[in-house]
Amino acid sequence: MAQPKYRLIYFNLRARAEATRLVFAAAGVEYEDVRIPRDKWPDLKPNTPMGQLPVLEVGGVTLCQSMAIARFAAKETGLAGKTALEQAHADMLVDGIDDLRGKQAVIRKASEDRKEQCKKELADFAPDFLGKYEKLCGPHGHLVGDSLTWADLVFYDVMSKVLAVLPGALDGLPRLAKVMDTVTANEGVAAWLAKRPDTPH
Amino acid sequence: MAQPKYRLIYFNLRARAEATRLVFAAAGVEYEDVRIPRDKWPDLKPNTPMGQLPVLEVGGVTLCQSMAIARFAAKETGLAGKTALEQAHADMLVDGIDDLRGKQAVIRKASEDRKEQCKKELADFAPDFLGKYEKLCGPHGHLVGDSLTWADLVFYDVMSKVLAVLPGALDGLPRLAKVMDTVTANEGVAAWLAKRPDTPH
Repeated sequence: MAQPKYRLIYFNLRARAEATRLVFAAAGVEYEDVRIPRDKWPDLKPNTPMGQLPVLEVGGVTLCQSMAIARFAAKETGLAGKTALEQAHADMLVDGIDDLRGKQAVIRKASEDRKEQCKKELADFAPDFLGKYEKLCGPHGHLVGDSLTWADLVFYDVMSKVLAVLPGALDGLPRLAKVMDTVTANEGVAAWLAKRPDTPH
Repeated sequence: MAQPKYRLIYFNLRARAEATRLVFAAAGVEYEDVRIPRDKWPDLKPNTPMGQLPVLEVGGVTLCQSMAIARFAAKETGLAGKTALEQAHADMLVDGIDDLRGKQAVIRKASEDRKEQCKKELADFAPDFLGKYEKLCGPHGHLVGDSLTWADLVFYDVMSKVLAVLPGALDGLPRLAKVMDTVTANEGVAAWLAKRPDTPH
């Protein structure tokens, strides 16, 4: 069997690599999903472009920055958006969701006595934020245009973590709820969700 | 005279809109550079996609998120990179520079008694960060490939602010220093730098 063209290197976590994994899964494209143990990281770090993971090795080039990698994977697999404007629309939704990701991520990192406060801050932030995304979302289960893009996959990745904390966060937001359904109904994604390693985040 | 195709709306600041302005300047593409007074913002805010500026109006669509806008402008004007890999390379350098932008931006926002500490933190951070960028930079005055991309312009925009605090930050980094020269030598950019409004940041 031929080596896959893409080699994604990260820790054994979803975190910053899962968007790219979901892109490859949705597109049905083979890649090498390399997960390095923490104790190997100091040796590898100096050989990465910015001293950070994930990196994607492709055609002798090593890319870093999680969203740059995911966008590249999306372009390569036809999931970036059909037109320049669709691509920009996907980019803006992906960049925007970083605010929600941040509010969710601090909960995990917070000390036990801060966790409830961080959850409350997410609960205060999410309705207005998600209300804006509902307005920006198309009616047919896609954030951009009329087909699956990486924006749907990034949204799914972040939102599934938000829903674990706030199970009702998508109540009354039918378009966004439909995006979640579209993503999990995708055959490649469904297969990936069923088999992906169970990791803390 | 025909209306320009693009309408960029922001405050009277460089800040989050300047990357896009530099792209249009370098490409010699006309656009409407709308700068709204702070007291008009509350009225405009609800009509923006995410309650944030800048936005770019183009072909009946309103885009937001500063880097999504700048990337779109770069694609439209041929400054995004020549191949998918060059574009990904530019994306990763643009995303990565956010760490440097952040260390620089906190200085401005810091209270007077915190400013020196923030400058010290930038001075501690910059050498290692810029050393990595020097290694990633091409030899001919371009961060990516052999021609100007928006990565050069974003780097210039952030770096010119860093140099205002740390004048020697590019000493011993000839490739990055050459990028700064390439950008300021661009005719469109030079004309823009000579005429752009003088703003606090």
